[in-house]
Amino acid sequence: MTPNLARPGVLARQPIGDFRTEAGATIPEVTVAYQRWGSYRVDADGTSNVVLVEHALTGDSDAASWWGDLVGPNKAIDTDRYCVICTNVIGGCQGTTGPGSAHPADGRAWGSRFPAVSIRDQVEVEKQFLDSLGITSVFAVIGGSMGGARCLEWSYLHPEVVAAAAVFAVSARASAWQIGIQGAQIAAIENDPSWHGGDYYDTGTAPNAGLATARRIAHLTYRGELEIDERFGTTPQTGENPLGAHRSAGQRFAVESYLDYQARKLTARFDAGTYAVLTDSLNRHDIGRGRGGLNRALSEITVPTLVAGVDTDILYPYHQQEHLSRNLGNLLGMAKIVSPVGHDAFLTETRQMDRILRNFFEQVDPDAPGAAGQIEYYI
Amino acid sequence: MTPNLARPGVLARQPIGDFRTEAGATIPEVTVAYQRWGSYRVDADGTSNVVLVEHALTGDSDAASWWGDLVGPNKAIDTDRYCVICTNVIGGCQGTTGPGSAHPADGRAWGSRFPAVSIRDQVEVEKQFLDSLGITSVFAVIGGSMGGARCLEWSYLHPEVVAAAAVFAVSARASAWQIGIQGAQIAAIENDPSWHGGDYYDTGTAPNAGLATARRIAHLTYRGELEIDERFGTTPQTGENPLGAHRSAGQRFAVESYLDYQARKLTARFDAGTYAVLTDSLNRHDIGRGRGGLNRALSEITVPTLVAGVDTDILYPYHQQEHLSRNLGNLLGMAKIVSPVGHDAFLTETRQMDRILRNFFEQVDPDAPGAAGQIEYYI
Repeated sequence: MTPNLARPGVLARQPIGDFRTEAGATIPEVTVAYQRWGSYRVDADGTSNVVLVEHALTGDSDAASWWGDLVGPNKAIDTDRYCVICTNVIGGCQGTTGPGSAHPADGRAWGSRFPAVSIRDQVEVEKQFLDSLGITSVFAVIGGSMGGARCLEWSYLHPEVVAAAAVFAVSARASAWQIGIQGAQIAAIENDPSWHGGDYYDTGTAPNAGLATARRIAHLTYRGELEIDERFGTTPQTGENPLGAHRSAGQRFAVESYLDYQARKLTARFDAGTYAVLTDSLNRHDIGRGRGGLNRALSEITVPTLVAGVDTDILYPYHQQEHLSRNLGNLLGMAKIVSPVGHDAFLTETRQMDRILRNFFEQVDPDAPGAAGQIEYYI
Repeated sequence: MTPNLARPGVLARQPIGDFRTEAGATIPEVTVAYQRWGSYRVDADGTSNVVLVEHALTGDSDAASWWGDLVGPNKAIDTDRYCVICTNVIGGCQGTTGPGSAHPADGRAWGSRFPAVSIRDQVEVEKQFLDSLGITSVFAVIGGSMGGARCLEWSYLHPEVVAAAAVFAVSARASAWQIGIQGAQIAAIENDPSWHGGDYYDTGTAPNAGLATARRIAHLTYRGELEIDERFGTTPQTGENPLGAHRSAGQRFAVESYLDYQARKLTARFDAGTYAVLTDSLNRHDIGRGRGGLNRALSEITVPTLVAGVDTDILYPYHQQEHLSRNLGNLLGMAKIVSPVGHDAFLTETRQMDRILRNFFEQVDPDAPGAAGQIEYYI
């Protein structure tokens, strides 16, 4: 049976039925938004050419946009060879059911009724989505940050589906530091008077001031201090004087203006309720929970996995990817992205990402271009 | 003339007259709170045995408490040999004039009327304080973090007073990353409805929720993620379940409870207005401002200076201390504190700090115990 897939590049919504979370809540009538690029093929042995790309916290299904240099014809994630599918995560706000969606019971927004979801829930929703399309085989799952966490859970939960994985800038579980800084972001949203306990969707306001605060903090964990300092240093914002006789919120350094701009960009496109739900998902990330601990769970992952990290990442420091590489049951290779950019380097360091991803496909796909006679890199 | 100093260990308040800030505001009738330990002496050539200890952002004049293992008889900062003086900074809330102090004009709190102060202002107030006591020579200035910034400015501004300096875990100027994360903390305080534009002192409330948020963020920049993760990992707080079917602010991970506890401890002893003023001071730190740039200003510092930093510091990364060491005009030596603790290691890694400080005194004081025949360490 050939799956009835959306037209290439077009956002589509697939109903997948009810979903029960790891912690025991039920979300009825879930819809998953997704995009796909490239033609679906399946070999005689049942192996498909589906590559699942997993987005990060504030990403969406438009991988050809946010990974524009890496996803496309003849690019590292080659849509001429692979059927690339990217879904918006459960709890999201870009088409998949989330706290801002209409509750089937009364048509009002889910709001505070929307349950907590774990990374495992995100994966199981995506599994249910593939099942609903009749896709039973995935050539590779690829993602960074929260997307990388999903790749690890995919490999643990469904090795019968996934043939290979490439995970970037993530860890085996949340660290206490991450929980601390991410908890502060959730608190910033929940302390906004417009939050209304999560039920702000029909009030005409939104906790965007809280979301903006969360984003400013988060952005500083995504970007290396070297990169930010290179760009802004202690330069005042044009026309403002942060060195005046009295401190004033309107008199900013350039970096403060930049963070305000990043915050505004996010609040214009993203829902605070989703931000809180997904940030909580990150806090719950733990590959070892209920499976005998981190290292045992990792050792039981048999899916061939490439691991990569960023040398200047303070959110998911490189030692966390080294830990993955030592303990995964079937490590394909390990790569270091060298960059002043920090965590976001998996989104911005295109040249290095291109090389790492091409090497990944050369290792897992005997027919990949350049797989024979290519330089074997240190990964 | 022998200065009329407070009795050893006792908090005293010294009126120093009016003070004009770098940015042009006037603070009339400033009082400086201080403590001292050890007897004052002055050599025939006018060199005193005064050691100025400079506290960090939320510190105070009680150096024998917060540096209890380093300040005292026979300790590295030896109160049997030196007259140790520690003042509470201008803008503070531990006895020195700050936004919570009574304004001389009307007896009400300064509040929003309190001007911005720079690190240079902090030093010039301390200079005016020493002048008021008749102290014209300082054997050494020693401090970490904001205290280290003051040591650098002391050396630049008053080489005729200061004979040597030891600076820990600081930089030549604020970095854009610091300004970003510190600006977020100021915003957290100013966005608290109890802030009242800075004039909350007679309202019966205080922006302690905002201050708590600021502290939670700050604490994660003071502590290395390795150390925090060692202690808490993903452990739930006892009796709470952060993995339930719905997210709840009352169901926390242990690290969140720990950060809440740290925040409560601070709000119980510290004023939000002072926190905002001093955090802004840190944002204004720039040894090069108006002096031809960072490296030129550093090269003009002729005071012999020891520099030390922490390998895991994310707030003042070690490369910033390497930068100081390359550019200071008269470097005594450079030391690395190796610790999972991060920035706060200059407060917690007593053994390493003890060795570094004893080496410092052996280099600058020919009569220091062990100065002859001692192992010469790599500093």
